[in-house]
Amino acid sequence: MKKFSLLGTGLIGTFYTMSLLGQRRKDIIHHVCSVPEESARDFALKWNIPKYTDDLRTAIDDPDTDIVIVALPNYLHKEAILMACKAGKHVLCTKPLALNAAEAREILDAAEQAGIFHGYLEDLVYTPKTLKAIGMVRQGTCGRVLWTRSREAHSGPHSAWFWDKKQSGGGALVDMGCHCIEIGRSFIGKDIRPVEVMCWADTQVKPIEAEDHAIALIRYESGAVSQVEVSWNFRGGMDLRDEVSGTEGTIRLDHWLRTGFEVYTSGSTGNYVSEKTETDAGWLFPVGDEVHALGYSDMFTDMLDSLEQEREPRETFYDGYVVNAIMDACYRSASTRKWEPVELAEWRGQEGLSSGVDMIDYDEKYFLIKKEKMPDGKTKVMLKEKSTGTIIQKYI
Amino acid sequence: MKKFSLLGTGLIGTFYTMSLLGQRRKDIIHHVCSVPEESARDFALKWNIPKYTDDLRTAIDDPDTDIVIVALPNYLHKEAILMACKAGKHVLCTKPLALNAAEAREILDAAEQAGIFHGYLEDLVYTPKTLKAIGMVRQGTCGRVLWTRSREAHSGPHSAWFWDKKQSGGGALVDMGCHCIEIGRSFIGKDIRPVEVMCWADTQVKPIEAEDHAIALIRYESGAVSQVEVSWNFRGGMDLRDEVSGTEGTIRLDHWLRTGFEVYTSGSTGNYVSEKTETDAGWLFPVGDEVHALGYSDMFTDMLDSLEQEREPRETFYDGYVVNAIMDACYRSASTRKWEPVELAEWRGQEGLSSGVDMIDYDEKYFLIKKEKMPDGKTKVMLKEKSTGTIIQKYI
Amino acid sequence: MKKFSLLGTGLIGTFYTMSLLGQRRKDIIHHVCSVPEESARDFALKWNIPKYTDDLRTAIDDPDTDIVIVALPNYLHKEAILMACKAGKHVLCTKPLALNAAEAREILDAAEQAGIFHGYLEDLVYTPKTLKAIGMVRQGTCGRVLWTRSREAHSGPHSAWFWDKKQSGGGALVDMGCHCIEIGRSFIGKDIRPVEVMCWADTQVKPIEAEDHAIALIRYESGAVSQVEVSWNFRGGMDLRDEVSGTEGTIRLDHWLRTGFEVYTSGSTGNYVSEKTETDAGWLFPVGDEVHALGYSDMFTDMLDSLEQEREPRETFYDGYVVNAIMDACYRSASTRKWEPVELAEWRGQEGLSSGVDMIDYDEKYFLIKKEKMPDGKTKVMLKEKSTGTIIQKYI
Amino acid sequence: MKKFSLLGTGLIGTFYTMSLLGQRRKDIIHHVCSVPEESARDFALKWNIPKYTDDLRTAIDDPDTDIVIVALPNYLHKEAILMACKAGKHVLCTKPLALNAAEAREILDAAEQAGIFHGYLEDLVYTPKTLKAIGMVRQGTCGRVLWTRSREAHSGPHSAWFWDKKQSGGGALVDMGCHCIEIGRSFIGKDIRPVEVMCWADTQVKPIEAEDHAIALIRYESGAVSQVEVSWNFRGGMDLRDEVSGTEGTIRLDHWLRTGFEVYTSGSTGNYVSEKTETDAGWLFPVGDEVHALGYSDMFTDMLDSLEQEREPRETFYDGYVVNAIMDACYRSASTRKWEPVELAEWRGQEGLSSGVDMIDYDEKYFLIKKEKMPDGKTKVMLKEKSTGTIIQKYI
Repeated sequence: MKKFSLLGTGLIGTFYTMSLLGQRRKDIIHHVCSVPEESARDFALKWNIPKYTDDLRTAIDDPDTDIVIVALPNYLHKEAILMACKAGKHVLCTKPLALNAAEAREILDAAEQAGIFHGYLEDLVYTPKTLKAIGMVRQGTCGRVLWTRSREAHSGPHSAWFWDKKQSGGGALVDMGCHCIEIGRSFIGKDIRPVEVMCWADTQVKPIEAEDHAIALIRYESGAVSQVEVSWNFRGGMDLRDEVSGTEGTIRLDHWLRTGFEVYTSGSTGNYVSEKTETDAGWLFPVGDEVHALGYSDMFTDMLDSLEQEREPRETFYDGYVVNAIMDACYRSASTRKWEPVELAEWRGQEGLSSGVDMIDYDEKYFLIKKEKMPDGKTKVMLKEKSTGTIIQKYI
Repeated sequence: MKKFSLLGTGLIGTFYTMSLLGQRRKDIIHHVCSVPEESARDFALKWNIPKYTDDLRTAIDDPDTDIVIVALPNYLHKEAILMACKAGKHVLCTKPLALNAAEAREILDAAEQAGIFHGYLEDLVYTPKTLKAIGMVRQGTCGRVLWTRSREAHSGPHSAWFWDKKQSGGGALVDMGCHCIEIGRSFIGKDIRPVEVMCWADTQVKPIEAEDHAIALIRYESGAVSQVEVSWNFRGGMDLRDEVSGTEGTIRLDHWLRTGFEVYTSGSTGNYVSEKTETDAGWLFPVGDEVHALGYSDMFTDMLDSLEQEREPRETFYDGYVVNAIMDACYRSASTRKWEPVELAEWRGQEGLSSGVDMIDYDEKYFLIKKEKMPDGKTKVMLKEKSTGTIIQKYI
Repeated sequence: MKKFSLLGTGLIGTFYTMSLLGQRRKDIIHHVCSVPEESARDFALKWNIPKYTDDLRTAIDDPDTDIVIVALPNYLHKEAILMACKAGKHVLCTKPLALNAAEAREILDAAEQAGIFHGYLEDLVYTPKTLKAIGMVRQGTCGRVLWTRSREAHSGPHSAWFWDKKQSGGGALVDMGCHCIEIGRSFIGKDIRPVEVMCWADTQVKPIEAEDHAIALIRYESGAVSQVEVSWNFRGGMDLRDEVSGTEGTIRLDHWLRTGFEVYTSGSTGNYVSEKTETDAGWLFPVGDEVHALGYSDMFTDMLDSLEQEREPRETFYDGYVVNAIMDACYRSASTRKWEPVELAEWRGQEGLSSGVDMIDYDEKYFLIKKEKMPDGKTKVMLKEKSTGTIIQKYI
Repeated sequence: MKKFSLLGTGLIGTFYTMSLLGQRRKDIIHHVCSVPEESARDFALKWNIPKYTDDLRTAIDDPDTDIVIVALPNYLHKEAILMACKAGKHVLCTKPLALNAAEAREILDAAEQAGIFHGYLEDLVYTPKTLKAIGMVRQGTCGRVLWTRSREAHSGPHSAWFWDKKQSGGGALVDMGCHCIEIGRSFIGKDIRPVEVMCWADTQVKPIEAEDHAIALIRYESGAVSQVEVSWNFRGGMDLRDEVSGTEGTIRLDHWLRTGFEVYTSGSTGNYVSEKTETDAGWLFPVGDEVHALGYSDMFTDMLDSLEQEREPRETFYDGYVVNAIMDACYRSASTRKWEPVELAEWRGQEGLSSGVDMIDYDEKYFLIKKEKMPDGKTKVMLKEKSTGTIIQKYI
């Protein structure tokens, strides 16, 4: 059993609380911090949390606290985490870790020097579907991973600070790209180095300074490409999908809009359907248990079991740092309009991988390009002559 | 925190244990019973359960035990539950409650006379999708419920006793029909009386005495019909779908085969995919968190929270009794080949409901049958003259 | 090239015309009949048809006419067809063939005695999906067919006469059950005899005399069961789905609501979406080419190619007669509330089939019930001892 | 009725023939050309075509021929089309129009100077789904189009020449990118200028010189971005999907793998399933009428009706030229690794469009960023102060 101080009571703080206190879990939130104090008090009352405050230090330094959960706006992460490091408390921090890679690096160093347990709360790699899919990829289901796509798109965030670049560090890319980037890494292999980035970002619709729509390609040392799509201009609910394509297989995940739960209703009932659903009439696509489907339950289980068993969790501040470095490269590329390298001061994964095509021997004379069953039932092969490079086809 | 004695270590006992011990839950299984003792010992070792036995009474009478969980073959439910009642222990029993309604009634009476807390472990009404869908129906999303369909079909159960009518009480209907019946009741309203049943049951494929395929229609006092489809002859995995149709809306749930998780792999990886998946190559449809998707997590949360808060859980032994009574009527109907009444010694819901059509006034002269937007953009109404019954159409 | 007289200009007449005149087809509608004459004239103008009339005989006896297409309300089929037989014209008649089996028999006899070509316009067995699926079933994809489900449900028909039992012969069952019955026959095998029927029919919502909702089970001599579901009370568009389950496989077809075409729009555009779509805002599921998706194109191709090649089309008046006989049995069963035999004066298919379980030898001592790969990767078999009938399980 | 000379008898020639001769169409292929002559003869025999040759000029100059259909490998298009222009024959040419924009321009000029009717056979903008979706976009269903995605991926083409850059002009991009580019243009508006391109292309798997995988972003003058994804490394069949996102709506099309036709079969039947399906066992996703689903039927209907009615078809050689120009920019960008302009010698659409955000007045003081219904049922607005740019949120 662990005791938490929760910093922040917005949507993400609420999701964390629903997850931590739901389904007869044994862990306890015993201190909550929010500004103004009134919102901390209301939250404490609602969730039966014994202590509340509007002062970060008070919540962090609480001697009963094992773990500090940072669920604050992005620009406050560093301050809160450094305070926790100083207090020697374990820290779990919501995504993105920091406003940029430099700040993330500072946070990571502080946590490692303090010797605390640090977990990066990247919930979307913990959805039950994603965990199982990652496991399948590791077991060889897809062969060598060639491409991933991760898409998060909806009509924009719920809190004002997200829309203000100074408080958030950016737009749709910072809000959701961090999810998509880490999902891509998780499928391709977190020990495979992200090399360079090409990114388009634009403000197409909303009257804001930051981008409301961005698309990025991240090239890994293995040759795999991770495609990231984020938008605050999407209509129809929350589009949350991932795809993986490899030499031997394919995966498609839909987390929100087409999950086998479909409803038609002729008129509005005035009730909540699911996060970011735009309407409550016509065809609706609710999600049964949102907290579980978004990965919060498995994420906290991993974090707390890891802490107790003295192992690293699936997502640490180092991962948060890598994600920030990739996002920095995205913004540079969106500005320079060309591929930009991912700058990592320290790389903790594999080095010197090569990417390359598969030369499959067909016989002494030919390489095999492709083998296919044709409509007429015959099998056709496409072959490349080793000596000349000439490509021929034949039926076998 | 509650302490359990678990009776039975088959697939269902395993699912219960995975759910009760997963996700940092605070409750504890501290005694497990199975025959032979070796299987109890292995199970205890694997799941870190301090005590094991092959004697029901030893597990039930354990003074530390708050709750007995009956996860035994159907023909042993009564004996175990009566023993628990005598010992004054709370009891949770897997589905179906009993071999037939008479036995279920005996169990219900014993539990109620003993004053213990009794929960009927009908997990499939607790899947997150089903819980949310039931909530939507109660809020009016579908209007008046007219029809439900619940289907469970796969290639047959995992344990030998299921295939033996004497130990199980029947075939596919007893194995899975109990789920479908209670799902239908939950959508139509558990306080609406099931009146009569028409059932077809046949042994189409398997060399057994019991039915391997059955279809039943259950008519409720409100006029709603619940359609139940069960089969042990289905190929392609586990078909687990529900539908609801009402005057104002429609719901479709797919719990297993099309849930937004799709995988193609060119060859076998030799790994487990999901319960009752037939193959591990080609297009696969895994389930992320099976325990959660099947409702076990929410079921135990409801059961244990209900016990602590001294309220009735969603599913009690009375519900188990009603389901057994409906199954008895199904078997009678399959034999007499006509509609058979559902015989309930005691009905605890609404009485004297009437079913009937909606006479909607269009104007003084006409009832409205239908209003529709046509391809040409015009609106057409279908009207019935009140005085003559003549049906006319017109554009408005 | 063939020349048609088209009788009837309602929705079905329009669909036929769109199909016959679309995609550069070579055949010609050169005479159209409708009452009042004004509607015939408007239709002729719109579709560039040279002749129109309000008199059946004029259209049928037109000396240039090769084929008469009957697209009239049900109660007028017999009169029109008998007239065409007398005139020696080929006839294609929309579904259902007649108000009941007796009338259908009379029509069939007249057509056969006249020696004309007769086609039963059952479009839904001609959808490209259904044709391919039937082909796959015939090739063994599903093994022995055990069960089919065919469902058609929407919010009710477009023309007043459908709602009047005297003109239509019944309610939802006559309107749509004829489709579902013939789809079931086509999957099970049109030469397999339909033996008996169990049907529930009720008027749940609409203020009419006929049923607005019905469910039927049709048992075939092979042991297969065809499940038919029809409703005029369904909300959410047109639910048009088929399923097949056999010893070796499964098929699921969705023809209308989930076909890979999904649209979200924040507000109404005032435009037509697809037949029987209830709304034009929110999530919509349009159909690209409705005429093609509903089978009209392939149906007329088969009919006219068959006529020219002097072979029987896929659907003849004999099929229409069988369907009417099954519907008669449905109505009897809905009234007597028990299984009713299908009464066929003449059966043109296989005789004396037996239904029975598969006794698969496992070894000398056992029959095989089931073989399954378990989560732990082991293979488990369920066996039945030949001498005793005892069922055991073991890992192999 | 029109008479064709068909040049080329590969897969595409076969699809064209199936479409032109199917469903009782009135048009006629009366001359076919292929090398070697034997393949022309076999094709003529199979499809009942009166004349065959291995000489392009013979087929083109046939005095009975109205229209020449070019279904040849890419490197032969120019020669054949120029020959047809000289002969004054109308020409329909398969995709891509040419090996590159310079060649395409030459072809376009020749056709326009000859005054012949020219159609660009881009079938995928003619699928019934795509046609309806384009219509909906034009009617305002999606508001202002912001983004499109078009994806075509499979395990590689059927004929040897595709794999040889000299004969095809490139790899996956030339083979399938031309489809995706034109689909994007069709949704965004064919009169909206494509401005610049960012493209990644790599040879990840196949032992060939050209790219087997490419991703491109095409920015239009309206600010819309068209995302193109093509791969010859995809496993699982043919992935053929499009998406559109606009200020008011969203469209998702699946043309091949999830179209409401799903089959499970326990073992191989040895039969053809659908184009590029990799397996015939396990879960399969057949397509009913492939020719129709791929747009061939509607494409030829438009082409021939346009010719007879003396109007431009939906796709002309000018469109082919634009597509080649965009592909040229893609290859330049893949090489320079930055955005590259689309170079069009002549632009026939709108000029001087501006892209820009929507400034929606909320009241005198604020712009509206977003309005949303929250889980608690309240409505929240996100506002931007006009004078300061400060973003606030409030409940209304």
